[in-house]
Amino acid sequence: MSAGLTPTYDASAAVHLAPVTVASYLLHRLHELGVDHVFGVPGDFVLGFLAAVEASPVHYVGTCNELGAAYAADGYARMRGVGALVTTYAVGELSALNGVAGAFAEHIPVVVVTGGPPTSAFATEPLLHHTLGNYAIPQQIYAHVTVASSLLMDGHSAPAEIDRVLTACLAQRRPVYLCLPSDVVDEPCAAPLPFVWPLPAPSDPQALQAAVSATLAMLSEARRPLVVAGVEVLRFHLQPALAALLEQSGLPYTTMMLGKSVLSEQNPRYLGLYQGDRTAPALLRRIEAAECVLQVGTLWTDFNTGGFTAQLQPERTVSASLRSVQVGLTRYNEVYLGDFLAALTQALIFRDIVGLLPAVVVPRREAAEPPPSDSTLLTIEALFVRIQAFLQPGVTLVADTGVALFCAATLRLPDGATFLGQTFYGSIGYSIGAALGAGVAAPGRQLVLIVGDGALQMTCQELSTMLRYGLKPLILVLNNDGYTIERLITDHSFNDIAAWRYHKLPDLFGGGLGLEVHTVGDLRAALAETTQAGCWTVLEAHTDRMDAPESLRRAGASMAKTNHLT
Amino acid sequence: MSAGLTPTYDASAAVHLAPVTVASYLLHRLHELGVDHVFGVPGDFVLGFLAAVEASPVHYVGTCNELGAAYAADGYARMRGVGALVTTYAVGELSALNGVAGAFAEHIPVVVVTGGPPTSAFATEPLLHHTLGNYAIPQQIYAHVTVASSLLMDGHSAPAEIDRVLTACLAQRRPVYLCLPSDVVDEPCAAPLPFVWPLPAPSDPQALQAAVSATLAMLSEARRPLVVAGVEVLRFHLQPALAALLEQSGLPYTTMMLGKSVLSEQNPRYLGLYQGDRTAPALLRRIEAAECVLQVGTLWTDFNTGGFTAQLQPERTVSASLRSVQVGLTRYNEVYLGDFLAALTQALIFRDIVGLLPAVVVPRREAAEPPPSDSTLLTIEALFVRIQAFLQPGVTLVADTGVALFCAATLRLPDGATFLGQTFYGSIGYSIGAALGAGVAAPGRQLVLIVGDGALQMTCQELSTMLRYGLKPLILVLNNDGYTIERLITDHSFNDIAAWRYHKLPDLFGGGLGLEVHTVGDLRAALAETTQAGCWTVLEAHTDRMDAPESLRRAGASMAKTNHLT
Repeated sequence: MSAGLTPTYDASAAVHLAPVTVASYLLHRLHELGVDHVFGVPGDFVLGFLAAVEASPVHYVGTCNELGAAYAADGYARMRGVGALVTTYAVGELSALNGVAGAFAEHIPVVVVTGGPPTSAFATEPLLHHTLGNYAIPQQIYAHVTVASSLLMDGHSAPAEIDRVLTACLAQRRPVYLCLPSDVVDEPCAAPLPFVWPLPAPSDPQALQAAVSATLAMLSEARRPLVVAGVEVLRFHLQPALAALLEQSGLPYTTMMLGKSVLSEQNPRYLGLYQGDRTAPALLRRIEAAECVLQVGTLWTDFNTGGFTAQLQPERTVSASLRSVQVGLTRYNEVYLGDFLAALTQALIFRDIVGLLPAVVVPRREAAEPPPSDSTLLTIEALFVRIQAFLQPGVTLVADTGVALFCAATLRLPDGATFLGQTFYGSIGYSIGAALGAGVAAPGRQLVLIVGDGALQMTCQELSTMLRYGLKPLILVLNNDGYTIERLITDHSFNDIAAWRYHKLPDLFGGGLGLEVHTVGDLRAALAETTQAGCWTVLEAHTDRMDAPESLRRAGASMAKTNHLT
Repeated sequence: MSAGLTPTYDASAAVHLAPVTVASYLLHRLHELGVDHVFGVPGDFVLGFLAAVEASPVHYVGTCNELGAAYAADGYARMRGVGALVTTYAVGELSALNGVAGAFAEHIPVVVVTGGPPTSAFATEPLLHHTLGNYAIPQQIYAHVTVASSLLMDGHSAPAEIDRVLTACLAQRRPVYLCLPSDVVDEPCAAPLPFVWPLPAPSDPQALQAAVSATLAMLSEARRPLVVAGVEVLRFHLQPALAALLEQSGLPYTTMMLGKSVLSEQNPRYLGLYQGDRTAPALLRRIEAAECVLQVGTLWTDFNTGGFTAQLQPERTVSASLRSVQVGLTRYNEVYLGDFLAALTQALIFRDIVGLLPAVVVPRREAAEPPPSDSTLLTIEALFVRIQAFLQPGVTLVADTGVALFCAATLRLPDGATFLGQTFYGSIGYSIGAALGAGVAAPGRQLVLIVGDGALQMTCQELSTMLRYGLKPLILVLNNDGYTIERLITDHSFNDIAAWRYHKLPDLFGGGLGLEVHTVGDLRAALAETTQAGCWTVLEAHTDRMDAPESLRRAGASMAKTNHLT
């Protein structure tokens, strides 16, 4: 079944059915935008559209439920630029809502396509199954977590509506919603013209020039400046512009959690993860010593900033955001981040930056000394030292919120690696669907998923979807006997979960490899067996219920304080 | 762990903590309303409230995910009158949305309690994890599928707000929403006075009298009248009033799918299931012969009416709904169904109903003749004949939408049985959470869950929750290799699913019994083993991918027509 996963990048391969229908128009557009696969679940109102998918160049990937489809579309979008899911009216689309809300929070362009009852039913609102009385409710709900939506009522208006909605999706990098009543699917409509990709609004030339000049002035006087690279660089695909700036300037850089893997972490100028008072001490000293910090597209979320403990002195800081730049206490509006990076890079070519010293080398993560013996029970620290060594160039590493995320974020990833986590919205269970989507988007890469037991129980079924479609992930399950992230806030029995035997999942799903490890020696053998087998593998690793990295302990204490639990 | 499931009906057992807090006030009210158990998942914003639950007379049942909690609260409410779920802000509550939407569609009183960020954060909207920019979004979304909601901002206003919202829940028998910011949980507040249960608005005495008189007039002239008992009788707990009417009148009755098990199906006056042209022929002839049909609280949904093929002649029909009665072509408004049933019953005492003949005996469901040999491959028909015999008095039978529902609806249930299905909203996967909730609500009863393979994959994890909390259901999995209900509409490969080995679920969950059957003999042996073992059991029954009852085939053809797929 994996044949359908071969990516096809050539938009010209899209074949127009004659005549063009609303469904084929939409599918042509999705394909043109890079959506070669849609994720979804059938239901009677969407069967006609799914039949149209079958006849199109877009491949259908069936998930076990709609939340899984939404998470998968999100993961796919992070790899490919845009993702899409297909659901049936109400029962399907409302099950997907939390996944789309996460994409809304994290600025991921996801297209929700839902198949609705026929247009005549929208007019008369009969008591059809799956309905809620007022037929407009699902679209009204989606309006809260999307930037554009449309109920396509006929072939005449559909093309312009589809283009309006998809343009908003790309321009704002956020989800959108389209409902196709079942009788509109095959309505004839106009043939698609080439899609007009939205461009960012141009910068105000004077503001841009002033921002660049002020930045150069601060940089020129600063000793030991550095860059904090943030999530907007990822979302708006500005990695080449950032790489050019770093190349020209020689500046070292850090990332925050949301910006992790924005550029290769094997770059010698990469200093590590900045997360406020949870930062590794050597790096924290280096950041505090900087006389100018140039923030590029960062977001000051709680997880990004160590619970808002990150402190940069405003008069020593440049903050370049998507549509503005703040230099010290002065703000320059109407400056687009891409323009700013390009103009600054160009200006740096002609300037010598006085006082820019070489980066201080920050110690990399190292194994605890002395190395533990094979019979030593696994610790989180020992586990991640070995996972670090297991990762190969080009790996797609997906981590769920909790111990998995906070540990994975401090790994130094191999060249070409991509890191996926829902680092702002933080909905546990996300990683499984996201790994499915990322694996479908880039099937040739190593795929490693790290997920806690509590998160796995949320969305376990999509592990089987990866198996079904021929993906070969290593699924590392951290079995620490419950919601450890919550125990670190307040330890009560409501943080217990059912005691599953995760390594038995292959027996249920009918394929793959299941391994269970308790000790360092077990882990070594299991990783070797995994490499040898080269197949879909669940590796259940038992660690102590309270074993967590210091960063997560501090996060727990911070959340306890925020929520009046101390 | 099952000790916590013992029901406690004595509201006076609720102990007031001193001082009363917003959390203890709310928990006292829930307990007073019959909510002895809440279903939920922890998350940092709700940990304080969960600690308050732990200290209250209300028991906490942890589910694997929030959709499971919502379905469980719905199932619990159908057994107990009211159900409740507890989630954390955004990531939790939005995952539960589809379950609450189902309760909204089907008029089930479910209380959603969500733990929010502290009130100060609602004012300043910092970039905290789990948030969506605008902190009001979750409540705004819930407004579409609830009849009242409140964000509790302080201890002063909380008691009145809680009472307002709970009153709406009970009065309208629909979901409501309460958000408790984490710093409000322990705010002191006024002690609860006894709850004022909402009463139905009184009937207009003249309209009531006129409706009863007109009904008596139609009944008195009618030969072979009968009653169609509907879902509103269940929702508004009017079974005693309906039973009294039937007792006094001697009238035979049918139910529609939504009203199934409203009264004992062992009642000799129960004729069977009415579902338009999908009705058993003998019953359909009996209904068509009736010169007066008295509908009591029916809803004319598509599943209830055989895809709107049910046809009753208006001039021979009385339709008593919740707030009005239509007799022939005349409508009487401001008549409450409970008042109408009582007044009609009283009037019937003093009247002889001319022409009321004994009910025609309708053939009951019988096994196919001759009985199949043990080596015969299982058919759906043979399977349900044996399930019929397996059901014991007082059984709670839960069926998921699809082959399971359409077959289970035609079983004649034992005395004291309760039937649960999401027969209007029809979200597959519902049955598993609902069975959990129903089992917790009534742990001493036989619990039988019938679920298709596609539905099981949606929400499989809550099967483990039943095991964890000591429930002992028979889980009958219809493994027919995909979404058969969708194949009956249009048969495409997108109706395929991953091929799980469902009888291996006990290995994953670490307990219970797993059995797999292919033949009639296998099934006989498996049901005997199930009875013997008396524990949580998965029985995976293989049937042909297109094997379905005639009623579902007709439903498939009807949905194909509705959705322009023919």
